[in-house]
Amino acid sequence: MKIAFIGLGHMGAPMALNLRKVGHELVVFDIEKEAMHKLLTAGASAAASPGEAASRAEMVITMLPSSPHVRAVYTGEAGVLSGVRRDVPLVDSSTIDPHTAREVAQSADRQVNPMADAPVSGGVGGAEAATLTFMVGASQQLTECIRPVLLQMGKNVVRCGESGTGQIAKICNNLLLAISMIGVAEAMTLGAELGIDPKLLAGIFNTSSGRCWSSDTYNPYPGVMENVPAARGYSGGFAADLMLKDLGLAVDAATQAKQSIVLGEAAQQLYRTMSARGEGAKDFSAIINLYKKP
Amino acid sequence: MKIAFIGLGHMGAPMALNLRKVGHELVVFDIEKEAMHKLLTAGASAAASPGEAASRAEMVITMLPSSPHVRAVYTGEAGVLSGVRRDVPLVDSSTIDPHTAREVAQSADRQVNPMADAPVSGGVGGAEAATLTFMVGASQQLTECIRPVLLQMGKNVVRCGESGTGQIAKICNNLLLAISMIGVAEAMTLGAELGIDPKLLAGIFNTSSGRCWSSDTYNPYPGVMENVPAARGYSGGFAADLMLKDLGLAVDAATQAKQSIVLGEAAQQLYRTMSARGEGAKDFSAIINLYKKP
Repeated sequence: MKIAFIGLGHMGAPMALNLRKVGHELVVFDIEKEAMHKLLTAGASAAASPGEAASRAEMVITMLPSSPHVRAVYTGEAGVLSGVRRDVPLVDSSTIDPHTAREVAQSADRQVNPMADAPVSGGVGGAEAATLTFMVGASQQLTECIRPVLLQMGKNVVRCGESGTGQIAKICNNLLLAISMIGVAEAMTLGAELGIDPKLLAGIFNTSSGRCWSSDTYNPYPGVMENVPAARGYSGGFAADLMLKDLGLAVDAATQAKQSIVLGEAAQQLYRTMSARGEGAKDFSAIINLYKKP
Repeated sequence: MKIAFIGLGHMGAPMALNLRKVGHELVVFDIEKEAMHKLLTAGASAAASPGEAASRAEMVITMLPSSPHVRAVYTGEAGVLSGVRRDVPLVDSSTIDPHTAREVAQSADRQVNPMADAPVSGGVGGAEAATLTFMVGASQQLTECIRPVLLQMGKNVVRCGESGTGQIAKICNNLLLAISMIGVAEAMTLGAELGIDPKLLAGIFNTSSGRCWSSDTYNPYPGVMENVPAARGYSGGFAADLMLKDLGLAVDAATQAKQSIVLGEAAQQLYRTMSARGEGAKDFSAIINLYKKP
């Protein structure tokens, strides 16, 4: 299949490479020419603009940092919509606000290009290992059409509903994740300070009503689990700055929807505090360091 | 066995009844004479004070509303410690602050009575069905000594460490539980308001990093699960006012330990808001009503 892949950063590059590996013909574009190097070496061809890349493809995939980038790449001058042939499916895997996702999809729809929002979870590791989960906001038909290609970059494709719902699912999940992670950080540090063994405390949470992914799979307290960022100085994993970005999207979406998220906003401030202390590149579970006494 | 049971409220009465059912000889005391009625009918004998009850027993169990009650019942005039014979084990199943639990246990220890804090989870339903979980703070030896009797009122006995750690485990678990429940409430209502199907959204949380007990076992959003308080107007379950009490213990313990719990204090304020609106008797998952638009 001829696929245009636009946005070859930490996530996009390994995703595109996985498509190349299984034999697709790739046309790539990135605003940073250097980012294209690895793909060109692997046999992809370069385009001079998103529009040119799209014009040569039977499917377009984008992986971009934020909403303004998505808007520009699709609807800007020499953007995807200026070049793409009708009926070619468009897949945006960026994590952006649902409102923008729906607007861009409506623009695409007007020129008869079906468009899906398909943000991912799984991080750089999942992108490299092709084990990402795609949360898809699109019609059932479009979802089935793009599923085989997504499964060459990931292992799960979950349809969340119509346009925008992929973004909603991603943002809401990460909102809940941030809150639970901070909850675990507070409960673990309080317990340890009061004198209970942290490993034993985590065991109690994990077999009772405090059970959550942040405690039983990704515990932030050092020494409780192996093979988690807390066991290696919070390197690798999901950077706190990316969590902060997702919390910003949740807060913006909540503001637009006139919906309050009290703990969500507090979580945003705590991650901003962590980032301001210069720790934004660490895994997001390092938020526990805000609570640990020196 | 001759057991003194002091405190026959919503929890204590069914717990004591379960001990009576398996054949123990009970001496009971409650400051409200009426509360003893059911037990006396079932063949227990009444004492005129905690001290008198304790003086006639080979084991003492207490189930009281709060720290001052525990202090008074054990160390007050005609209290347990004034009457109990040496070496008789003492078990306090109240949920109180760890500091008081340790102090009372030290007083007991001085007159050679080993004492355990053994708060429970499982609620009135668990007390009636003898399916409670006991979180025990006591020596290994004392834990093994009282385990058979606790297992006649529950199905799990978890030793959390030395004196006070049962309370710490209970308080920290419920702190985390309150935070995750509010996190689920915020993420579910935000998602629903933005336009994703709530059942589908819960399914995504439950198979990804937002997974937690409050979402996959006790989801607060009506229509997502059957057989949870959200499916029956938030009746039954664990009253918000009891969660508010436990959050108060967490905040007090954190203050004493000079440990910050940012989301924990916000959770306390949200439960206080719920209580002030006259909804404190509803299940704690009804906190979601603070977020749902009318």
